[in-house]
Amino acid sequence: MSLVIVGSVAFDTIETPRGRVDRAIGGSAVYSSMIAGSFCRPMLVGVVGEDFTGAHRAVLEARGVDIEGLETVPGGKTFFWEGRYGSDPNERDTILTELNVFESFRPILPESYLPAGFLFLGNIDPDLQLSVLKQFPKKPVTGCDTMNFWIEGKPDALRRVLERVDLIFINDSEARQLSGESNLLRAASTVLAMGPKVVVIKKGEHGAHLFAKDFQFIASAFPLEDVVDPTGAGDTFAGGFMGYLASAGNMNHETLKKAMIYGTVSASFTCERFSVERLENLEIDEIRGRYNTLSDITRFDRE
Amino acid sequence: MSLVIVGSVAFDTIETPRGRVDRAIGGSAVYSSMIAGSFCRPMLVGVVGEDFTGAHRAVLEARGVDIEGLETVPGGKTFFWEGRYGSDPNERDTILTELNVFESFRPILPESYLPAGFLFLGNIDPDLQLSVLKQFPKKPVTGCDTMNFWIEGKPDALRRVLERVDLIFINDSEARQLSGESNLLRAASTVLAMGPKVVVIKKGEHGAHLFAKDFQFIASAFPLEDVVDPTGAGDTFAGGFMGYLASAGNMNHETLKKAMIYGTVSASFTCERFSVERLENLEIDEIRGRYNTLSDITRFDRE
Repeated sequence: MSLVIVGSVAFDTIETPRGRVDRAIGGSAVYSSMIAGSFCRPMLVGVVGEDFTGAHRAVLEARGVDIEGLETVPGGKTFFWEGRYGSDPNERDTILTELNVFESFRPILPESYLPAGFLFLGNIDPDLQLSVLKQFPKKPVTGCDTMNFWIEGKPDALRRVLERVDLIFINDSEARQLSGESNLLRAASTVLAMGPKVVVIKKGEHGAHLFAKDFQFIASAFPLEDVVDPTGAGDTFAGGFMGYLASAGNMNHETLKKAMIYGTVSASFTCERFSVERLENLEIDEIRGRYNTLSDITRFDRE
Repeated sequence: MSLVIVGSVAFDTIETPRGRVDRAIGGSAVYSSMIAGSFCRPMLVGVVGEDFTGAHRAVLEARGVDIEGLETVPGGKTFFWEGRYGSDPNERDTILTELNVFESFRPILPESYLPAGFLFLGNIDPDLQLSVLKQFPKKPVTGCDTMNFWIEGKPDALRRVLERVDLIFINDSEARQLSGESNLLRAASTVLAMGPKVVVIKKGEHGAHLFAKDFQFIASAFPLEDVVDPTGAGDTFAGGFMGYLASAGNMNHETLKKAMIYGTVSASFTCERFSVERLENLEIDEIRGRYNTLSDITRFDRE
């Protein structure tokens, strides 16, 4: 099935202990859709300026991403972010954020996207997430992301989103903030009660934990000897997860487990190079290889 | 097979957000041996003062712990520690440490302990760990623990210990400190090169990662809704791990995997009550129950 992905498209300048990259392609919708292309037909909704060239578009199209929903604002400039990581890949400083055309982003879905069975709402204003949901004649299976900025700034709109989505991807500190619970299991229960059928708590290098009513599943992160640039790892996780879900066409327990592992190993590739470099020529066999390795190094049977 | 356990025996006063306990039984050898009693015959080596009563000894003996090697210093006082945890169970403040009889601890093994096939050297001065190793006519399969205090203060003695042990249990920050590598995989490789065949990196609520030459295994922590007191969780992990190893009588890959899981679920019980309370009447069926639950919520097959 098809997967619509709504989110940011950006240029990122990133400095890590392993080097630096200037104005490289980035943004949540870019990472999510480029990995989802390994599993299904992703349909991107986003906005860019005139500085987003044909060469940039080609990077997305080479991954099978449908960019009919990528709007170009005449005379506009693409969202720009500059950040720096220290030795701890979980912490980063934002040096500069220029929203540019992203500031007045009003996502409009092309007609060809409307029959899609799956939707991923990247981390954008919850009012915009709601406006996207309203455009579908029949609600697709929907996953959403969010962040502390919206948890604090737009709690009511976010709650309306949560009442309408099937899955939420959220990191551990955001889950604690959203729920007011410091224990992760209690935090997940509280978020489940807000509406989503499935809560996926991302813990970076410590893996991810999926919670549903009467079901949970824990995935260890794929161990990496070399973390070059963690930017986009969370977006890649969600894109791999939702992409696999769309390819399976259901949300049963077995599918959710596999989606967790595909999301996990997808994220590991993103961290190995700057920007989307590692995703550009990523083969499904490489993804499956890590999937199987992770099974080998974590699997144990009941006694 | 039998397992000799050398380490501290203490009284702990502990305050956590969930309450407080005064002068409760604690210490690395206590937690390790009480859980090891679920798997094998633990033989404890430690030192206490006259304030360690028959009732305290009975707590150990009820778990099948041989305390012939528990020395009582006439007129002495038992090691005392007071600590306080905030909302983050990974961080604690030490309020008071009174070494008392532990300051001049010189571990002497009773003759009946010498045929033991397995040995766990809890976190004590590496020179004392070496002195214990020298007392065995035939070196047992040996695991050791250590801490930042010895990594900084006695690096040479610690290196001599590492050349002689089969396994080391170490937490993630200590592994980074000992190896000088911030990446955990590189840290583990560096520590392996120092001598041990197996390096087990403990990551608290994030589980544990075992490294050997050409073999690794990752265990997720058992998810807990209620962490009352994390004191002794690491010691319980090592005690459950070494206890299972002693019961299996070998160190093959299958045994190491099972030991990781038994260590992991053992530690989860300790966190659920203050001091050793949860270990006192812990049944092997409860341990197996969590073992199987952890398999259910983490296991996935190769694609």
